[in-house]
Amino acid sequence: MSILITGVAGFVGCNLAEQFIANGHTVFGVDNFCRGQIENLVKVINHPCFCFSEIDMSDLEKYRAAFNKFHAQDPITEVWHMAANSDIPAGVYDANVDLRDTFMTTFNTLQLMKAAKVPVITFASSSAIYGDLGEEPLVENVGPLLPISNYGAMKLASEAIISAAAESYLERAFIFRFPNVIGIPATHGVMLDFVRKLAATPDRLDVLGDGTQQKGYLHVEELIHAMTFIRENALDKVAVFNIGAGDEGVTVNFIAEQTVRECSPGAYINYGKGNKGWVGDVPRFIYSVEKLKSLGWKPTLGSADAVRRAVKQIVTQEASQG
Amino acid sequence: MSILITGVAGFVGCNLAEQFIANGHTVFGVDNFCRGQIENLVKVINHPCFCFSEIDMSDLEKYRAAFNKFHAQDPITEVWHMAANSDIPAGVYDANVDLRDTFMTTFNTLQLMKAAKVPVITFASSSAIYGDLGEEPLVENVGPLLPISNYGAMKLASEAIISAAAESYLERAFIFRFPNVIGIPATHGVMLDFVRKLAATPDRLDVLGDGTQQKGYLHVEELIHAMTFIRENALDKVAVFNIGAGDEGVTVNFIAEQTVRECSPGAYINYGKGNKGWVGDVPRFIYSVEKLKSLGWKPTLGSADAVRRAVKQIVTQEASQG
Repeated sequence: MSILITGVAGFVGCNLAEQFIANGHTVFGVDNFCRGQIENLVKVINHPCFCFSEIDMSDLEKYRAAFNKFHAQDPITEVWHMAANSDIPAGVYDANVDLRDTFMTTFNTLQLMKAAKVPVITFASSSAIYGDLGEEPLVENVGPLLPISNYGAMKLASEAIISAAAESYLERAFIFRFPNVIGIPATHGVMLDFVRKLAATPDRLDVLGDGTQQKGYLHVEELIHAMTFIRENALDKVAVFNIGAGDEGVTVNFIAEQTVRECSPGAYINYGKGNKGWVGDVPRFIYSVEKLKSLGWKPTLGSADAVRRAVKQIVTQEASQG
Repeated sequence: MSILITGVAGFVGCNLAEQFIANGHTVFGVDNFCRGQIENLVKVINHPCFCFSEIDMSDLEKYRAAFNKFHAQDPITEVWHMAANSDIPAGVYDANVDLRDTFMTTFNTLQLMKAAKVPVITFASSSAIYGDLGEEPLVENVGPLLPISNYGAMKLASEAIISAAAESYLERAFIFRFPNVIGIPATHGVMLDFVRKLAATPDRLDVLGDGTQQKGYLHVEELIHAMTFIRENALDKVAVFNIGAGDEGVTVNFIAEQTVRECSPGAYINYGKGNKGWVGDVPRFIYSVEKLKSLGWKPTLGSADAVRRAVKQIVTQEASQG
């Protein structure tokens, strides 16, 4: 297969590229290095089956030129669309960030796929499309979908236009609703934040909120496995799946303690107030992965073990970069 | 109150303007006359409480100038956002139509409301956000939402960013999921189409599809009443309501027969094949309005009577314009 990965220099994109190349596929990649980093491509950049173009996908004409050049070289059989804003507070502050980097990248990708007759898209959606449903479990068939951040809104908006495209010209579409994904290369997120804070002030860790905020976490290696499993096994023309660890998750408190244990044993953890870190953050939710389990996939690590593993990996990553 | 109506020269917008002015409110209106028509404003255009600006809302700077001018004149207390593409096939053919006229008009409206601290929005959403759920009733709490047209997709996308705005800076948001709405002034739709076809060829009416396609219809006068009822009575910060007749609807066949009876008795009705009129059209659905009934509102006309009334009104409209 010949696969275009958007956001290939990002956290999920670079892990996907490594996986696809290991499996013998041709991989085309685009990234604007806004949040993705060239260092993330070190394992694939010189591989003969990898071809990269640094472009901003919100610029349709530049994106079209790169897309068509790839497509002429080896016809693209599917697009794995991972490019998006990943900084939720930035998008709450300025809606243009999620408009440009999350929604318009999807819109432009579909326009190019339609013109070039590329039949299959997979999309990195998010649990954020559900908004804050309180105690109600987040299941694929629940509604109404009222996201509380522009990040979640533009992910839902992207799902919607992908669905319409599937009715009109795509053969298949796979919508993966990501949980909180952790691992390396870490570019953002609570663990990296804690590790860096402790590097700056080894005796003290300031935590936004009271630490009781609880979420499930999935390791990126398992996320990749789940996505390829769904791609191979789901039957719906538009396949929508929550992906997650399927447990009750762990608290920020737990993550803070694990990070202190790895980085700076004995450091004082200073909690803030309230159980929301920022506008647009969902305090606690139960993320159902029953549909994915029914398809035959389940993770090998629970949230707690995924956090322990990721914290160790991030500490190593930061030490090697320091 | 001081109310901005977007798409004020459209089918629903002009009916709303008349209603609000009759109730003593100040009404500001914008329209680009792309689908709206100046003739639709004849009853309000010279009223001292009505102020109109011809602008394209996708041009943010022009929209900002008009918005701020209104706001300086009499601070806008709420926005009734009715502007949208209403030509579903046009948006299937070119996704930019719904992007520009449905999604970006919502996005820009929210940007201006945020800057000017206007606290309340109501939004004309659509049953099209549900996509084709087969025999499953379209209820507000169903998912996943997989629209099959860009029209439906951009309506859902608009709902999503309104929801995020309500978390961040709006006080209230009201999302009205419209059914098929009929009445006058008719600018598009199956009834106007049939009336015009019969004017051109009085002995014959060609119908897309086999005529078995069945939908519920609500008269625009009742739609206006339902919207103002929800605005006054709903309690949720983001209130999402299906609005409709609550019956099983009528077939295209029934509408064709009613139109022939009014316009051209004895004309031959020539049906096509299949039960979909075009890509993006949903063949048949059950549209639940139980939530709206629970709030205390129900229509006085069923779908059949609404169709009979609208057909008569449209025939009169066309005769007076002919």
